[in-house]
Amino acid sequence: MLKAGIIGVTGYTGMELVRILHNHPEVEITYASSLEDIGLRIGKAIPHLDKGDDLVISDFDISEAVREAEFFFVCLPHGKSMEIVGPLRDKGAKVVDMSADFRLTDPSVYERWYGPHTRKDLIEEAVYGMPELHRDRIRDAELVANPGCYTTTTLLALQPIIAAPVEIVGNIIIDAKSGVSGAGRAPKPNTHFIAVADNFSPYSICRTHRHLPEMEQVIAWWRSAPPPLIFSPHLLPVPRGILANIYVPLASGWQETQIRDLYAAAYQNEPFVQILPPGELATLAHVTHTNRCAISLTFAADKLILTSATDNLLKGAAG
Amino acid sequence: MLKAGIIGVTGYTGMELVRILHNHPEVEITYASSLEDIGLRIGKAIPHLDKGDDLVISDFDISEAVREAEFFFVCLPHGKSMEIVGPLRDKGAKVVDMSADFRLTDPSVYERWYGPHTRKDLIEEAVYGMPELHRDRIRDAELVANPGCYTTTTLLALQPIIAAPVEIVGNIIIDAKSGVSGAGRAPKPNTHFIAVADNFSPYSICRTHRHLPEMEQVIAWWRSAPPPLIFSPHLLPVPRGILANIYVPLASGWQETQIRDLYAAAYQNEPFVQILPPGELATLAHVTHTNRCAISLTFAADKLILTSATDNLLKGAAG
Amino acid sequence: MLKAGIIGVTGYTGMELVRILHNHPEVEITYASSLEDIGLRIGKAIPHLDKGDDLVISDFDISEAVREAEFFFVCLPHGKSMEIVGPLRDKGAKVVDMSADFRLTDPSVYERWYGPHTRKDLIEEAVYGMPELHRDRIRDAELVANPGCYTTTTLLALQPIIAAPVEIVGNIIIDAKSGVSGAGRAPKPNTHFIAVADNFSPYSICRTHRHLPEMEQVIAWWRSAPPPLIFSPHLLPVPRGILANIYVPLASGWQETQIRDLYAAAYQNEPFVQILPPGELATLAHVTHTNRCAISLTFAADKLILTSATDNLLKGAAG
Amino acid sequence: MLKAGIIGVTGYTGMELVRILHNHPEVEITYASSLEDIGLRIGKAIPHLDKGDDLVISDFDISEAVREAEFFFVCLPHGKSMEIVGPLRDKGAKVVDMSADFRLTDPSVYERWYGPHTRKDLIEEAVYGMPELHRDRIRDAELVANPGCYTTTTLLALQPIIAAPVEIVGNIIIDAKSGVSGAGRAPKPNTHFIAVADNFSPYSICRTHRHLPEMEQVIAWWRSAPPPLIFSPHLLPVPRGILANIYVPLASGWQETQIRDLYAAAYQNEPFVQILPPGELATLAHVTHTNRCAISLTFAADKLILTSATDNLLKGAAG
Repeated sequence: MLKAGIIGVTGYTGMELVRILHNHPEVEITYASSLEDIGLRIGKAIPHLDKGDDLVISDFDISEAVREAEFFFVCLPHGKSMEIVGPLRDKGAKVVDMSADFRLTDPSVYERWYGPHTRKDLIEEAVYGMPELHRDRIRDAELVANPGCYTTTTLLALQPIIAAPVEIVGNIIIDAKSGVSGAGRAPKPNTHFIAVADNFSPYSICRTHRHLPEMEQVIAWWRSAPPPLIFSPHLLPVPRGILANIYVPLASGWQETQIRDLYAAAYQNEPFVQILPPGELATLAHVTHTNRCAISLTFAADKLILTSATDNLLKGAAG
Repeated sequence: MLKAGIIGVTGYTGMELVRILHNHPEVEITYASSLEDIGLRIGKAIPHLDKGDDLVISDFDISEAVREAEFFFVCLPHGKSMEIVGPLRDKGAKVVDMSADFRLTDPSVYERWYGPHTRKDLIEEAVYGMPELHRDRIRDAELVANPGCYTTTTLLALQPIIAAPVEIVGNIIIDAKSGVSGAGRAPKPNTHFIAVADNFSPYSICRTHRHLPEMEQVIAWWRSAPPPLIFSPHLLPVPRGILANIYVPLASGWQETQIRDLYAAAYQNEPFVQILPPGELATLAHVTHTNRCAISLTFAADKLILTSATDNLLKGAAG
Repeated sequence: MLKAGIIGVTGYTGMELVRILHNHPEVEITYASSLEDIGLRIGKAIPHLDKGDDLVISDFDISEAVREAEFFFVCLPHGKSMEIVGPLRDKGAKVVDMSADFRLTDPSVYERWYGPHTRKDLIEEAVYGMPELHRDRIRDAELVANPGCYTTTTLLALQPIIAAPVEIVGNIIIDAKSGVSGAGRAPKPNTHFIAVADNFSPYSICRTHRHLPEMEQVIAWWRSAPPPLIFSPHLLPVPRGILANIYVPLASGWQETQIRDLYAAAYQNEPFVQILPPGELATLAHVTHTNRCAISLTFAADKLILTSATDNLLKGAAG
Repeated sequence: MLKAGIIGVTGYTGMELVRILHNHPEVEITYASSLEDIGLRIGKAIPHLDKGDDLVISDFDISEAVREAEFFFVCLPHGKSMEIVGPLRDKGAKVVDMSADFRLTDPSVYERWYGPHTRKDLIEEAVYGMPELHRDRIRDAELVANPGCYTTTTLLALQPIIAAPVEIVGNIIIDAKSGVSGAGRAPKPNTHFIAVADNFSPYSICRTHRHLPEMEQVIAWWRSAPPPLIFSPHLLPVPRGILANIYVPLASGWQETQIRDLYAAAYQNEPFVQILPPGELATLAHVTHTNRCAISLTFAADKLILTSATDNLLKGAAG
């Protein structure tokens, strides 16, 4: 029985992890901390949990944490996360970090998009946590940097075509839409019910969203001189789920069946990636409350349109 | 052309007032203030307004306010409202106050539910602003205390039966449900989209909500020794609208037609109260985006069930 | 491994059952039928299921059904259900019926509310399927009549007080609100997104809803001459969940602690009923996507207000 | 006072028209027909209307229609619309047709996308009803073909750049999202609350949606050899509103200010088109319940991203 600790247990990702780990036969949650609700039982702070969630939420203390658990999920905002991940790693604990703090391999890129990085020494050991990409390395990693939710949704759809010797002529456009849980649990004007319900709104479009450098970093692992990305995120009036349309301009001459074969081959053994048959388009209903990524392919002239959907709290949170 | 000022223009009530007054042929908005968005044009701060809303939002200043307008709508939270209403009345301006500050005629009741009252001298001149109750007094009032949204919805339904010589045997139960705009524009954990969407939650039920003394005060104007009220408010996952079921236990012997006649007579000349025919139940769809109260009557044994619906931002906000 | 069949697999209850049984270690779904999507794989008809749901949906055939499975969940509307349950029982198969067809012990009451009953011979053997009421009888039953969703939510809250020697003086009022999945999957004007979203609407209030005789039947098992019920159902703009406020007028002299003790005693060993502590009110968020009933108790004067919440698709569907 | 008739008054467009015309000082609704609710007062069939809507809904009869009104809005599905528009025009009545039946100037294109056209004789006299395009011709037209909602939203954003001598290099991609009222009032599986709420789904993407030929027809009026369009519509879980991102690949060398000047010049005198300032992105909240189109421009490399939003029931329905 693996003893797991969750840091930031009252955020959306933390709460979802508790739900998942409760059903996991080989993991027991033995430590939980948060900035809020300290001293409450988990079962009280998270109302939908079942009876018996008697673990009490702690104010984070490094000595107590490593005494109680051996393996940690850190579910904190970027910047705050490294302040906890650092001491945990110093004590030798294994960590899965849900924030952006250890995703970017180049610290100068991190600092341009996010601000100062105080634990650059740990960047090199961090393994980017996309199982479909390199499951073996994750299994043995001491520090896993979990990908962002937009990034996972986009990269799983792009990987087969980017990694293949198919010429791409021009920008790749990603028109992406996310449910509100992606914006975090802190009350803000843009997450007020009245601001979201009956509304739909783009933000940080084009080349200004922080997930862009992360996407471009990974794409560059798969192909040299990859095409620049244009990324348009939106806030959807739904609690959870991400759906993106990804427009890939192909050079002339590629047949639909050739591209479909690439995708079938790439994911034939992946239980959590589902390539939909021709004529069926991915929707949020395919994926909410599941750990799956559903991908559909549509073709017109020389454009490939990938529609990719995930549950931002599950496909993003599960190890 | 009446020159109107709006204090607290960027709250939900203030925004709705701007929309209404823009369409009013005899009123012009000549002053607007807010704690936020100072220096912005109204048309920028309130995105759904049309072009041409060039009035700039001021930081409240009493001299500027009374120079620019003669008549004010004060759309501020209780406690803050009296701090603005007081100086405006001292300068002789007419005021409609949307808060609870001048609704209760007994200052000790106010202070028990809301906190200290610093302008008790104005309580006596305030006229309770329910047109269906005493339209004449409102027309001449210098200070109108606009009723709360739950209160309006409840009292319009109860007035005919309370004012009539019909014996009521036991408590009146009000099971009421409100859209989120009733909770105000400030971001709070309980107005976060994720807390509201797909949820439905009671709060302050029984005899603990602040609108209760206001309801009981008005009912006592209509009948001596009125029955106590039990009031159960809930938060509905909709932007706007209030619907309440009101259970009135009648003494034996009353016929449905007698009660229906009471209601027909009470509201036959009221353009904004609609008594629905037998078999049709009031819903939010009857009233959202209108200035109407829709009321249906259902009978069983000796219980009268009143279902009453209003748009909390309109029937509550219009003078 | 128990071989289970699901009749009506593409309705909301059927789909939810598939999800539950997929995670059940001792049950395998070996047969599924529906009027729609015949010939499709379950995994295609129900988009959120995971890969590997390769069971093909059949057009119902009694011989095939009893050859493939030994135990059936019948998820059909009332009237249609008895036409399938009958032949299954004739062949000796065990059945859990989700419809109203075998809930009422008096066939004349059934026929007054629902229409003709063609399998009255089976009514007597049917066991009313509320585990908290008589778990032993359900375990051995050949035919279980699963309670309605409004009924479960109401009866779990009422059982301790009805079964106790506490005098109740007057009607019990049940003001109940249900998510849209309670209205079934067939497209109808009242389940159109536009009719539901931003709306909230009562229907069949007072004493006209079909779940009323079922509630009154069960209450009469617990207390002779029980008080009449007044039942006001509403449609909530949420996919799932039921929340009811139940107003119980108690005779004078009962203390809050006495009533709380009754509830604590009744449910101390029930894993799926959660009595909330004083000050915490039940909400849909306590129960959606769980198999739980959350109940809170509020007291005022001599009224007990029970607030009870369940997920209509789970607490209603799980055996 | 212009006497107007509305054919198909109980659809979403018809209902919205009633609301608009009620507030119009120079128009009176003197005739209304529908396939449903015949014999009901309008005020009963459309619950949110105010008291006094006493016009009774007729079963359509050409003689009665032209006796009662001189000017008609036909709010019927394509195919059905021409069967009513034809006789009305034969009798000399002026008509605004809300359907697709008279939008396409080439009947063979119509028949490829929609089916047989039985009144080709009227196609030539029909004026495409986009006021921003040719207000004069609409004013004098006998038959106005109102543009589709997706089309209006897209074309208002594209007009300035398409009509200008700016080189466009490659496809224009339109990623568009519509509220549910765009799908009509008939209950269907895809408009069921449960299918829409918490979901987001693409449909008919790429080059398969019926609004595509209409868009391409109008674009060809503005520029010869226009770039092909790729159009991806989606269903949003909101009652009303359309928002589209339109990606236009420009040839190198154009400056942001040049393009902004084009848009400012094009719409400086248009009261219902609002070009947002740099840094502000169009959202549904800018336009719902208004007759406006809000457009924002974003630039990256040589891509122009137009974000365009309208209320599909208003900017689409008002003459």
